[in-house]
Amino acid sequence: MDKPLKGIRVLDLGHVLAMPTCTMQLADLGAEVIKIERPGIGDDSRYFGPFKNKESAYFISINRNKKSITLDLKKDQGKKIFKDLVKISDVVTENYRPNTMQKLGLSYETLKAINPQIIYASICGFGHKTVYPGRPGYDVIAQATGGIIAITGQADGPPTRVGSSIGDIFSGSFATIGILAALRVKEKTGLGQQVDIAMMDAVVSVLENAVVRYTVTGEIPQRTGSAHPSIAPFDVFEAQDGWFVIGVGNDMLWERFCKAINKTDLLNDSRFTTNPKRSENYKELKPIITEWSKEKTVEEILNILINAGVPVGEVNTIDKIVDDPNIKLREMIVEVEHPLAGKVKITDTPIKLSLTPGKVEKASPLLGEHTEEILNKLLGFSKEEIKSLKKEGVV
Amino acid sequence: MDKPLKGIRVLDLGHVLAMPTCTMQLADLGAEVIKIERPGIGDDSRYFGPFKNKESAYFISINRNKKSITLDLKKDQGKKIFKDLVKISDVVTENYRPNTMQKLGLSYETLKAINPQIIYASICGFGHKTVYPGRPGYDVIAQATGGIIAITGQADGPPTRVGSSIGDIFSGSFATIGILAALRVKEKTGLGQQVDIAMMDAVVSVLENAVVRYTVTGEIPQRTGSAHPSIAPFDVFEAQDGWFVIGVGNDMLWERFCKAINKTDLLNDSRFTTNPKRSENYKELKPIITEWSKEKTVEEILNILINAGVPVGEVNTIDKIVDDPNIKLREMIVEVEHPLAGKVKITDTPIKLSLTPGKVEKASPLLGEHTEEILNKLLGFSKEEIKSLKKEGVV
Repeated sequence: MDKPLKGIRVLDLGHVLAMPTCTMQLADLGAEVIKIERPGIGDDSRYFGPFKNKESAYFISINRNKKSITLDLKKDQGKKIFKDLVKISDVVTENYRPNTMQKLGLSYETLKAINPQIIYASICGFGHKTVYPGRPGYDVIAQATGGIIAITGQADGPPTRVGSSIGDIFSGSFATIGILAALRVKEKTGLGQQVDIAMMDAVVSVLENAVVRYTVTGEIPQRTGSAHPSIAPFDVFEAQDGWFVIGVGNDMLWERFCKAINKTDLLNDSRFTTNPKRSENYKELKPIITEWSKEKTVEEILNILINAGVPVGEVNTIDKIVDDPNIKLREMIVEVEHPLAGKVKITDTPIKLSLTPGKVEKASPLLGEHTEEILNKLLGFSKEEIKSLKKEGVV
Repeated sequence: MDKPLKGIRVLDLGHVLAMPTCTMQLADLGAEVIKIERPGIGDDSRYFGPFKNKESAYFISINRNKKSITLDLKKDQGKKIFKDLVKISDVVTENYRPNTMQKLGLSYETLKAINPQIIYASICGFGHKTVYPGRPGYDVIAQATGGIIAITGQADGPPTRVGSSIGDIFSGSFATIGILAALRVKEKTGLGQQVDIAMMDAVVSVLENAVVRYTVTGEIPQRTGSAHPSIAPFDVFEAQDGWFVIGVGNDMLWERFCKAINKTDLLNDSRFTTNPKRSENYKELKPIITEWSKEKTVEEILNILINAGVPVGEVNTIDKIVDDPNIKLREMIVEVEHPLAGKVKITDTPIKLSLTPGKVEKASPLLGEHTEEILNKLLGFSKEEIKSLKKEGVV
């Protein structure tokens, strides 16, 4: 059976991570994603480590399932080719600064005049509608301005960036949702529209209860290490040989937990009888739990608490994940064969559909691998014309 | 113009955060989300702080735009009503443990027999297809087993949970993408399917380059505080009155940065002339930057570096975000009027569509607020019948 987005064509001007995450999700689900790159150079992330046979595994992991054509959008012929592709595409995606497409003469308004059905999705630091039009937006800036850095880290330590670029990845995922919603509208009404994702917005929208904690109570949410701000014990703890987490979300689990660790006296301890009390007296509770856990291995602790029905998890390092039996069963790490890099193990889609599953089918494209195919099959250019476009540096 | 998901009916058995995030996104985009809650009790998160007039602002923020009916799925009549609703709905969503719906006699297979077009989306810790069928999965467990905790935190500090429940929120967002893709398939083929999201998968899929760093180099990614593992200076720094980040991603930006902070001598310092050297000698570079920044306010630093074209951002605390002019322009924080809590400021959708925008339209429902409406209008129950269902505790 066809994948869900079979027949959808996406012209992808995305680079590095935010928009490439979106178009990776679209390509995994079956869209034809045509990645448009600068002749001779390509996406910046082709130069990001780690490398295998000089090929970027970073690039490979995010650009699987896509096609690549080169096109110089600063040249008139490059613009013409791009506009001709817009006529026969469903979606245009980009993550430049807001004014870049305007300067190229390829703003949404221009493209809409060419193809009223086109969906134009952008991701940038502060949005196309913004009071900060010139400000660049890297992931770290979105994480900082969007508030997640201020609330991540130990209570007595500095504000801390999340260990992966979630500002980019959330923005890309929200762009995907916006595009899928806009495709529905387009198919029902024949009208395209603009999807405008600001990375700062994306981070603000995933602060969970931090915003209402401030707007309702006036208290500014602080860093609390790994502890949940209002549920206890719900934290990272140290074992003899590593780290683990528990999530004791209610009084029933608290009872199970105390029995499992042979500390039933805690059940009658007035400091800990309800969740609000455990939260309030957590500074006294944490050392009691650590005293128990420091004597045991992570494996022993998992056995005890899983058997007792207490939510528990090991703090997996990345090597553990790659070997995890559930990750294997769910085919979350797959090997792709890249023509230059050889076999590379990358992450597959977490969106598991039973009837029309998306999945990694092929490695990332070489720079301009599909230029001839696209120009010839979609736009009717002859081999000679393509050769001359190459000579002129247009493709 | 109608919102993108107008006409789509979702029966939502979700609770707390992961699936409610998904159905919030669907409701924001115009789906009719019918939240099914336990009579007299409702979603656990109705009891999560902060509270305003005893109403949970946590619940309000995530369940805006939804309807609520109460239904006891353990009672035969409750099951019957649920199945009758499945016949006239497009999507069923739940985030119980894998065997819960089976035990209730409401597995996907059962529901599919009733309505072959139904899309059945689940989120749980390790997936419905899993080697860990009994293991519960809270956000903190997904963050731990999925690897983000191991790579978040200071280099010399403990592994650190991300400050909001991104394990839940990514899972919910991926469920939304899966449901939108499945809706496309359903509309083209008349066939429903299962969307099976594992929270651990979701976290593994957002580790960025950590997986390839391990699979390609064999090195286990470590915590690096806020510093970028291979670009410098790209970190959180302390100012006189707060914190800020800079992203000096290349040598041109390094030159701009040194000029802006009046330390042009650094440009000739052999420890710092290229990015690899700056990364290698970052321990010596960081104090030089901090020496400069500690004397200045965040506002002064932003003025200097924005004017110089250096990527920079303030580490916003939540109070700053609520007052940020760009957040205001983009209407990211909106006030809803709740019948009991009164006015509450919550986060609106970050998915900004130009033609058919999703948005917060109304506050979260009271427990069972729409029970009568749904039972009467959709299933034809009379007032008397509903009264008797209430008496029997079915609704």
